[in-house]
Amino acid sequence: MPQVAVVMGSTSDWPAMQKTTLLLDELGITFEKHVISAHRMPEQLQTFAQTAQKNGLQVIIAGAGGAAHLPGMIAANTLIPVIGVPMQSHALNGLDSLLSIVQMPAGIPVATVAIGDAGAKNAGILAAQIIALHDEGVRQNLVSFRKQQTKKSIDSEAELV
Amino acid sequence: MPQVAVVMGSTSDWPAMQKTTLLLDELGITFEKHVISAHRMPEQLQTFAQTAQKNGLQVIIAGAGGAAHLPGMIAANTLIPVIGVPMQSHALNGLDSLLSIVQMPAGIPVATVAIGDAGAKNAGILAAQIIALHDEGVRQNLVSFRKQQTKKSIDSEAELV
Amino acid sequence: MPQVAVVMGSTSDWPAMQKTTLLLDELGITFEKHVISAHRMPEQLQTFAQTAQKNGLQVIIAGAGGAAHLPGMIAANTLIPVIGVPMQSHALNGLDSLLSIVQMPAGIPVATVAIGDAGAKNAGILAAQIIALHDEGVRQNLVSFRKQQTKKSIDSEAELV
Amino acid sequence: MPQVAVVMGSTSDWPAMQKTTLLLDELGITFEKHVISAHRMPEQLQTFAQTAQKNGLQVIIAGAGGAAHLPGMIAANTLIPVIGVPMQSHALNGLDSLLSIVQMPAGIPVATVAIGDAGAKNAGILAAQIIALHDEGVRQNLVSFRKQQTKKSIDSEAELV
Amino acid sequence: MPQVAVVMGSTSDWPAMQKTTLLLDELGITFEKHVISAHRMPEQLQTFAQTAQKNGLQVIIAGAGGAAHLPGMIAANTLIPVIGVPMQSHALNGLDSLLSIVQMPAGIPVATVAIGDAGAKNAGILAAQIIALHDEGVRQNLVSFRKQQTKKSIDSEAELV
Amino acid sequence: MPQVAVVMGSTSDWPAMQKTTLLLDELGITFEKHVISAHRMPEQLQTFAQTAQKNGLQVIIAGAGGAAHLPGMIAANTLIPVIGVPMQSHALNGLDSLLSIVQMPAGIPVATVAIGDAGAKNAGILAAQIIALHDEGVRQNLVSFRKQQTKKSIDSEAELV
Amino acid sequence: MPQVAVVMGSTSDWPAMQKTTLLLDELGITFEKHVISAHRMPEQLQTFAQTAQKNGLQVIIAGAGGAAHLPGMIAANTLIPVIGVPMQSHALNGLDSLLSIVQMPAGIPVATVAIGDAGAKNAGILAAQIIALHDEGVRQNLVSFRKQQTKKSIDSEAELV
Amino acid sequence: MPQVAVVMGSTSDWPAMQKTTLLLDELGITFEKHVISAHRMPEQLQTFAQTAQKNGLQVIIAGAGGAAHLPGMIAANTLIPVIGVPMQSHALNGLDSLLSIVQMPAGIPVATVAIGDAGAKNAGILAAQIIALHDEGVRQNLVSFRKQQTKKSIDSEAELV
Repeated sequence: MPQVAVVMGSTSDWPAMQKTTLLLDELGITFEKHVISAHRMPEQLQTFAQTAQKNGLQVIIAGAGGAAHLPGMIAANTLIPVIGVPMQSHALNGLDSLLSIVQMPAGIPVATVAIGDAGAKNAGILAAQIIALHDEGVRQNLVSFRKQQTKKSIDSEAELV
Repeated sequence: MPQVAVVMGSTSDWPAMQKTTLLLDELGITFEKHVISAHRMPEQLQTFAQTAQKNGLQVIIAGAGGAAHLPGMIAANTLIPVIGVPMQSHALNGLDSLLSIVQMPAGIPVATVAIGDAGAKNAGILAAQIIALHDEGVRQNLVSFRKQQTKKSIDSEAELV
Repeated sequence: MPQVAVVMGSTSDWPAMQKTTLLLDELGITFEKHVISAHRMPEQLQTFAQTAQKNGLQVIIAGAGGAAHLPGMIAANTLIPVIGVPMQSHALNGLDSLLSIVQMPAGIPVATVAIGDAGAKNAGILAAQIIALHDEGVRQNLVSFRKQQTKKSIDSEAELV
Repeated sequence: MPQVAVVMGSTSDWPAMQKTTLLLDELGITFEKHVISAHRMPEQLQTFAQTAQKNGLQVIIAGAGGAAHLPGMIAANTLIPVIGVPMQSHALNGLDSLLSIVQMPAGIPVATVAIGDAGAKNAGILAAQIIALHDEGVRQNLVSFRKQQTKKSIDSEAELV
Repeated sequence: MPQVAVVMGSTSDWPAMQKTTLLLDELGITFEKHVISAHRMPEQLQTFAQTAQKNGLQVIIAGAGGAAHLPGMIAANTLIPVIGVPMQSHALNGLDSLLSIVQMPAGIPVATVAIGDAGAKNAGILAAQIIALHDEGVRQNLVSFRKQQTKKSIDSEAELV
Repeated sequence: MPQVAVVMGSTSDWPAMQKTTLLLDELGITFEKHVISAHRMPEQLQTFAQTAQKNGLQVIIAGAGGAAHLPGMIAANTLIPVIGVPMQSHALNGLDSLLSIVQMPAGIPVATVAIGDAGAKNAGILAAQIIALHDEGVRQNLVSFRKQQTKKSIDSEAELV
Repeated sequence: MPQVAVVMGSTSDWPAMQKTTLLLDELGITFEKHVISAHRMPEQLQTFAQTAQKNGLQVIIAGAGGAAHLPGMIAANTLIPVIGVPMQSHALNGLDSLLSIVQMPAGIPVATVAIGDAGAKNAGILAAQIIALHDEGVRQNLVSFRKQQTKKSIDSEAELV
Repeated sequence: MPQVAVVMGSTSDWPAMQKTTLLLDELGITFEKHVISAHRMPEQLQTFAQTAQKNGLQVIIAGAGGAAHLPGMIAANTLIPVIGVPMQSHALNGLDSLLSIVQMPAGIPVATVAIGDAGAKNAGILAAQIIALHDEGVRQNLVSFRKQQTKKSIDSEAELV
């Protein structure tokens, strides 16, 4: 029974959202992945979101671009935390995706991360940080991940030539 | 049986959306009005949109602000034309509302009008233009409205003192 | 006698606007297509728009970029619904096109769709939704189109590997 | 026979455009003023612009806001220089007005000045600079105006207390 | 021992961040509140963030405006989830705050919510959703809160007069 | 003795500004061209601008990018009309160039045209429109140019296949 | 002989720039203050900047708004560091001022600070930090200022009630 | 003992920041260079900044992108001047980097330069201008550099063919 669901509006979001799944793997978190278009599959969206908690999901990560309604509409249909990843859109470079996801009205929050690949990676880490509050194994993985990450940054200075 | 539904995400949108209803009245179009919050009332949204056509509605006008998902999610659940009115939001003056409404992905269009009051008025006129295609009475009303509008602009020149 | 006119400011808009015509074809709607530059052909614009209704047109779809005046000026000269498609412009990526089209003053609406290809496709669908209100054949085509579209999204999940 | 026409889309633009007329007065330039809404009075716009030169006008100054089509559409119908003044719009503070006026496609230029009052004043001065090329009286007025303006700036330093 | 810390860069952020604390109260979550300026109190920031987990905190909510470094720098010093609330800044209305908070590089996420009051409220709800994953009491409170919220929206339709 | 000067801040602006010179050639206007960097050659700028009128120049066209001070500083040092062309800059695509040129304070106008190539071409046409007020030959050239331009647009419709 | 010059384009910038002078006073730095409009007083600008170093000035702080050319043009005429303060402009809230000041081309830097009052204060502090490199008294003043500033932030927490 | 430190958040910033080091070399200024990620190496950042002055550094140049906290957090931990260089980020082209660096709250300034390569070069020049206030050798180098730069601009006019 997966801990996290990674959903996206279209397969064109997969190159970014795959980075989320790689980080979840690295941090020892189980996940499922889905294409759920908010606009083409509104009923599937509702069913998915309304059954998420009873299916054992702890966090939902949703990537979407343009008029990105997927994260907010999932959040409207569940009580578990939803992380929104704004895709880098074609014309407006993701500014539309960002505002469509982050500017949620009071009552239904979406935990929004950065536009594009950086955000996709951070969505996986943020999910792990949430799960780590009650999962010591994931917490240990995060501790190691952070140490390694810091070491890698320190070591990279040697490349400045 | 009303021809148009005017829906909005919150009563705070009413001062703008009331301007839509005044124009519908002026153009002889019957309407109903609703508060349907995409995020607080997702099931009501779905029921409303899926039954709209069979209830005789011909056009839906939806006003929403910020991460404005209402027009797009209604459009995802019906085949009748949906007109989206971006509310002038607090922090970003409606730029977030506009992008959240207009930047719909291919497949599900929303007919978007201007931010705020001008858009709210134009939503009523646009609905009338759509209905006038098969309703000669409304078409006559539009003809008169336009003539009067032009006359008013012409006459206003006398105020330049 | 075509139901829809697809007009654009320049042949450089054709790669996008051709996507509109493909969707009109798919949805069984007849159309004509024109280059009408608002700035280089203002008299032709006026003649075209003023005779549109009497020529049997039911919807006009106008694509334009930059200081995009074509949709609004057509709308100023006719009572039939005008759909505006903001082209993705060179310097500002279509933000200028979008604002020039959508921010119409009260009195003359333009039904604006998304910037670029997504908007061009949606313009065709929106025109069909408007025509479907009084054309059962087009409505049936839309029903099929939507079902197919949803199925395609559902099936695409298999590509997430 | 006035040298300049000051036109605006609506009487709501008059508080700004009146500043244009005050500067024209100060610089000794005769002018007429009009309300011409590009969208409500498209035929009047065309007649006005097409007869401007033969009526002796040397420069047209056009103020407009939002999807501001007035300056560009006048420019499309005349060969005399058109100066566009972007009004400070309600929602987007004139960014929409500016882009709608300045981003004209190749072929039909509009000489655009700053948003709002500063632009309205500068439109008057720019018109004078154009006319001064063949009108020595206006040139002398400009020389005096500039000298006075510089002196006023220099003297204002005494107010820094 | 409080479950959540609400921190802000300055007392000028308190009117917004107080809304966070009201929601935490309503949802039955204990909290502490602090002024920690990232730029004036960098050492206090580091001490606070590095001891947060051992002090029993489960979520940190950080509000900041302009070049808003507080949420990201706290996140850099702890493994517990950090929620960032962009304050509505003076000149740029919070766009600077939003981008400074949300555009975190890969490695250190901040869960960003909307600009201003809506975001401040949602930060409290999001913290509750995270805590509810392992706290059945908070989950029950959320269920009630959501029901009440939906009912309130439904009932508000009566105000459309 | 040239009628127009085409100046630019750097040779990197030449690919765009060359389009200005091609149009001036086509419209029968003589011109000189210069590199004058506002920031690297402030004294040369001042000398050039202060002697422009006495050297017989009637219009100055200045292209610049980024913090584009060239057109405004030339305008500050002469009474003849200055046309500013915002270059498409590297990071911000010319939005910085546009605002730096068009947002001149009251007192010193710059006639601003579109960002990049379209603006560069229009600068040449605008200069011609100004000169045509007192030069019948140039006016005749403009009449022909416009006719040809309109014809070219009309004929281009055949390419929509 | 003052160490710093505080210049501004207009007396309307004084309310902000006065905050610069208050900080210079507090940090024990002598200064002179001037109105120098880049566009109305270009010759005075050049004289001022070219003689600044020989007059003993060590830093120039320049506030300007809109198409803000003052800081960059001063920097073009001197070798001493120039700090630019973007004024909060009327229509675009200082975004135009910021881009006009900060986006200087390679060769002539302007040390840009935040828009409006915060930037005006920081300009004074930055000047002090530069001078403190060779002025131990100013350095001591900065040390005290920073300590006091930190203490004030710490103490302000008591106001969160 | 180097006079300047050039630091950056990641090796991906090196192509831009190397341009800073080339200019420092050209102007005869010694420097050290470091990778210090504000978010991955917060403790190293603090140690570096707090010991900078005692290690003889006179200016710190920090390049960072996205939610760019590096320059501001260094400035919060030292009294020597900090120059911030906004990197051209992937999605938002550096607008996020710019606002995250320049919009510092009152109390802790960062001397911000242009986005990307131009800013990286100017950071080196600005550091030299600051050091030249008390280092005659560097001042002489700057004088030569400026003269050469002006000559190069003047000579480049020959390339306009």
